[in-house]
Parts: sequence; C-alpha cells; structure tokens
Amino acid sequence: MRQCALGIDLGGTNLKGVILDSNGSIRHLTRIPTEASKGGKRVLHNILTLIEKLIAAEGSKQHIIGVGIGTPGFVDQDGTVDGADNLPGWKGTNMYEPILKAHGLNTIGANDVTVAALAESRFGAGKGVNNMVCLALGTGIGGGIVINGKIYAGTHGMAAELGHIIVEPNGIQCTCGLKGCVERYASATGIVSIALDKAKKPSPDTTSELARICREKPETVTAKLVYDYAKRGDTFGILVNEYVCDKLAAVIGMICNTLSPDRIILGGGVMMAGSIILDTTSRYVTKYCFQQIWKKCELVAAQCGEDAGVLGAGAMAFDAFSGK
Amino acid sequence: MRQCALGIDLGGTNLKGVILDSNGSIRHLTRIPTEASKGGKRVLHNILTLIEKLIAAEGSKQHIIGVGIGTPGFVDQDGTVDGADNLPGWKGTNMYEPILKAHGLNTIGANDVTVAALAESRFGAGKGVNNMVCLALGTGIGGGIVINGKIYAGTHGMAAELGHIIVEPNGIQCTCGLKGCVERYASATGIVSIALDKAKKPSPDTTSELARICREKPETVTAKLVYDYAKRGDTFGILVNEYVCDKLAAVIGMICNTLSPDRIILGGGVMMAGSIILDTTSRYVTKYCFQQIWKKCELVAAQCGEDAGVLGAGAMAFDAFSGK
Repeated sequence: MRQCALGIDLGGTNLKGVILDSNGSIRHLTRIPTEASKGGKRVLHNILTLIEKLIAAEGSKQHIIGVGIGTPGFVDQDGTVDGADNLPGWKGTNMYEPILKAHGLNTIGANDVTVAALAESRFGAGKGVNNMVCLALGTGIGGGIVINGKIYAGTHGMAAELGHIIVEPNGIQCTCGLKGCVERYASATGIVSIALDKAKKPSPDTTSELARICREKPETVTAKLVYDYAKRGDTFGILVNEYVCDKLAAVIGMICNTLSPDRIILGGGVMMAGSIILDTTSRYVTKYCFQQIWKKCELVAAQCGEDAGVLGAGAMAFDAFSGK
Repeated sequence: MRQCALGIDLGGTNLKGVILDSNGSIRHLTRIPTEASKGGKRVLHNILTLIEKLIAAEGSKQHIIGVGIGTPGFVDQDGTVDGADNLPGWKGTNMYEPILKAHGLNTIGANDVTVAALAESRFGAGKGVNNMVCLALGTGIGGGIVINGKIYAGTHGMAAELGHIIVEPNGIQCTCGLKGCVERYASATGIVSIALDKAKKPSPDTTSELARICREKPETVTAKLVYDYAKRGDTFGILVNEYVCDKLAAVIGMICNTLSPDRIILGGGVMMAGSIILDTTSRYVTKYCFQQIWKKCELVAAQCGEDAGVLGAGAMAFDAFSGK
C-alpha cells in the first residue's frame, strides 16, 4: 500500500484534515470546529481528535508518514506557534510533541499561506515551475514562497510577511505598527477603506453610483461591491481599482527584483474579482520591476481554492518525512 | 591529492583567477587584464588564457573539478551573459562551451555580487548561518542571496537585482528606466548626487563645511568625502547620512519581510565608512520591517574584501560539480 500523509488546515472556524496520497488525491476528509475562542489547549486537543478521526478513517496509521499543519502565524523549528493574533491563546503552543506523544507521528508546521503556496506549486497554478510566490488577498494579505519546489520559510519560520512590505513611505497606519504596508491598500479591508476615503474627497466622479453608496451607506461597502461596480464600468470603481492595483504592483515589483520568480500567484477572497486585478496590476508592475526580470515572470490566479490548505499541508509532510 | 576548483572574478579592468581548496585556501592566484574595451570575444579569449595559466601553475587539471565565474550582469542556464552594460560586447557571450572545448572543464557562472555573497557565506561575515543577503554599495548597488547555504539566482540567473528595488515611488530617475531605485540614493553615485542636491536647497546647515564644498566645488565631492565629514560631526554630512540610511533601511526592511534572512551583509566601497552606516541604518529599519523578523536578523559589514569574487567563484564550482 502506498504511503500517505495527514494534512491539516487550521482555520479560525474549522479544523480541516485530510489523508493525502503523494499524487495529491484526497483519500479521506474530515472537518471539526476549531473552537479558537476556548484557547490554545482546546485547539490542540481538537487537532489531536481530528488526527484520531483520520487515522480511524484510514484504518491504520501504518502508511501515514507524518502530519503537516498550516496555521495562522509562524511556526518555529520546535513546532511552537508565534503571531496568529486572531487565535487567542494559540500563540506559544507547541504542536509537535503532543502529536508525537498521542499518535506517534512526526509533525511539520508552517504559516497557512506558505502551505497554500506549496499546494499551488504541486497541484495548482504553480505546476511546472521551480520558483514562485503567492499573495493571498483576504482580510489581510498573506504571503508564501516556494523555492526549488520547496517551501521557503526562513530559519525561524517567519519569511514571506509580504502583506507588511511598505509600498508607501509614511503611508496608512497598519495594525502591525508600521505605516504604508501593502495590506492597508490591497486586502479586502484595505480596498474598502481606500474606497470610503477616496469617496469623501471632492472628485469628478460624482456621477458614480459606487461613490454615492460609499458616502451614504459606507457600512454596506465590501471589496466585492467595489469590484462588481468596477467591472460594470463605474468610474469611481475603476479609479479605486487602478489605485489598489498600483500598490499591489509595487509589492510584486519588489518581490520580483528580489527573487525573480517564474510565477506570482494571486489568491484569496479578493481574487474572486478575477482578471480585472491581474490585468490592471500587470500594467503597473513595469513601474516597479526590472524589465528583464518581469519578462520572465507570469502573474496568474490561484487554482487550488478551498482545499489549498490541506493539500499543501499534506505535501509539506511528504517533503519533510518521506524517505526518512 | 585533494580536489580543487578554479575561481574567476571578471572585473572591468582585471580578470583575477585562483585555484581554491575546498576549505577556502588559495593555492594559486593570477591576474591578467580583462581588455573589456576590445569586446566580448577578446574577454573570452583572456578567460581561456587565465585558465591555462592556472592549470599550468597547478601542474595538472586532474584534480580541478570545474570553473566558477563571477561576472557583471546575469548568466543564464546555458552560460550566456546578459545585462553587464558596462562591458561592451560581453552581453550575449556564452562562456560554458568554449571553456569545455578548450580545457575540458565544466563551468558555472553567476552575477559577481551573488558570487561575493557566497564567499561571505562560506568564509566571511555570513559564516554559521543558512540564509543571508548581501548588498554591495559601490558605484551602483548589487545584491546577492544565499539560501540554505547555496546561491539563489532564480531560474534565469537574474534574482537579487536589489539595487533596483523602488524605495521612493516616482522618485529619482534611474539609468534602468525606473524611478526611485535605492541605487539612486545609497550607492556612491547616489550619495554624491543626494548631497549636491540637498546642498542647493536653503537649509539651516549654512555653517557646514561639507555643504559649502558641495556648493562651491561639486566636482570634488565623493561618497568618501561626505562620510569623512559626517563622521567628524559635520551637520550637513550627518543629514545626508540619515537620509541615505533611511532609504537603505527601506530596502533592507522589504528584503527582511520577504526572506527573513539570518543576516544582511553590507559591502562595497561605500562601506569603507564603516559602523556609521550600520548604526544609522539599524535605527531606521524598524520603520520598514516586521518587528519579529528584524529581531532575528543581524546587520553586519562584509569581511572578504577584494578576494570575495574569486573565493565565491571557487566555492560555487565546488557546489556545482563536487560529487559529480
């Protein structure tokens, strides 16, 4: 029987786990609540329960080579989580030892977007290239780097904090303490606040329905709404999109000049807007990127969708433990 | 007899070559003129001659595992040089085939700063860490990235164009076509033009001798002069240093948020100024870098000096060809 890996995606609401074949096919999939509000110990307990359920579904742990976990925040070399500010009590929890004790399985953890980047590399939009970078445009902006087909997380598991790269010196205040992070401009939250802010200022776009909604019903404005209007040709929506994509292009230019990746992959909820973001951003990257490097880089949309987390976590376990 | 590698540093004036032991000790060193003005064919001919001289010095090529070459510009997978705008005719030259034909030796080439970064990693300021980034502050700014102890040059040999990362949106026009590249602020050329530019503007530093020289004898101003005055406490010199180091800090913050390296190493002629640049830049990086990442990163000066090119080139050949 072929080896398999156990992949877990730790989300704010659910823990999702799979038993994965090395070719990326899911043999079993289980979901249980994360119960993040009950603290780190409870989350860990639930992870152990999820692993138990998956082992039971598989019938035996004989062929499971190890566990991969994608989590918000960072994971250090010992398996202790740092960051992950949206999961109370999860920071400081060590994952590796309890899993080894309870189930006799080795574990490897990494940031959730980094893990999703590996999924794209193996099974999605990154197939066929060695070096790629993912940007997940969600509530915030997460990053993931794959180098020579493997996750690059740096010595301390903290690499690819791409959402906190400064694209505007002394720009908008970020929750991280810095000013002008790209997350403040091109995440779902960022897009909404940019739109609301620009709508307050006098502009020639008084005819725009989106601008009117931003002024009169600001609480109803979402990134999706902004892009729905932009795609319909709303002048204010287009203006916001151009501004947002310019900032996104700035961070892509910096990443390209540093890593010269073969592909940049854009994912996350904001990318539901689709090709308008890819097309507009592409136009602006030339302002920020060494031309020869940009010519060799493709900007594409993510493909793995909701399963990216578990697929990448399983693939990471294969990378870490197969042949050992 | 132990294996050795042949390392070549291709400079604008001289071709420098060594026979290198795996522990980094130089067995033979030879220098001949590059003759760059005579075109790419002549440069290649001179490289072949240099290799011949080094083989003769060694007595035999039996133990030479291969040739490493550091060159301005990029080197693609086939060994063809691109970029290298300061060496007329060198662009487009293929290095690997002629060396294999003439001497039966395999060759690996890379950008000169990338190669110097490997030297720092193995024998200098990067010893003992896995992931590091070099910035060479010279006439321009070059970059080199070492990941897991090996050169990272990207699929097309173009990674680490760190001098062309934008630190000021719509900033100073760069020769590369972009605006606001860090090279325009923190290279030797950049520092001089920043100083001359700032000296023209009305400021409270009318008492500064450096400001007076910048206004009255601009042709005598060098980066060294600016730093000699800054270190003596000249108020205008200090002001220029703060501005330059702020821009340098911006690029370091971006690199750190991307790669979370264990060390950033600053080298090149500008670093003759020494600790004033390290100290001032360190103060500013916190404006641009995720705090947890910066806490785990050291900012240090390069140590390999003039030999970095040949040492790194030899080490690169060991990496590429030993055990093959």
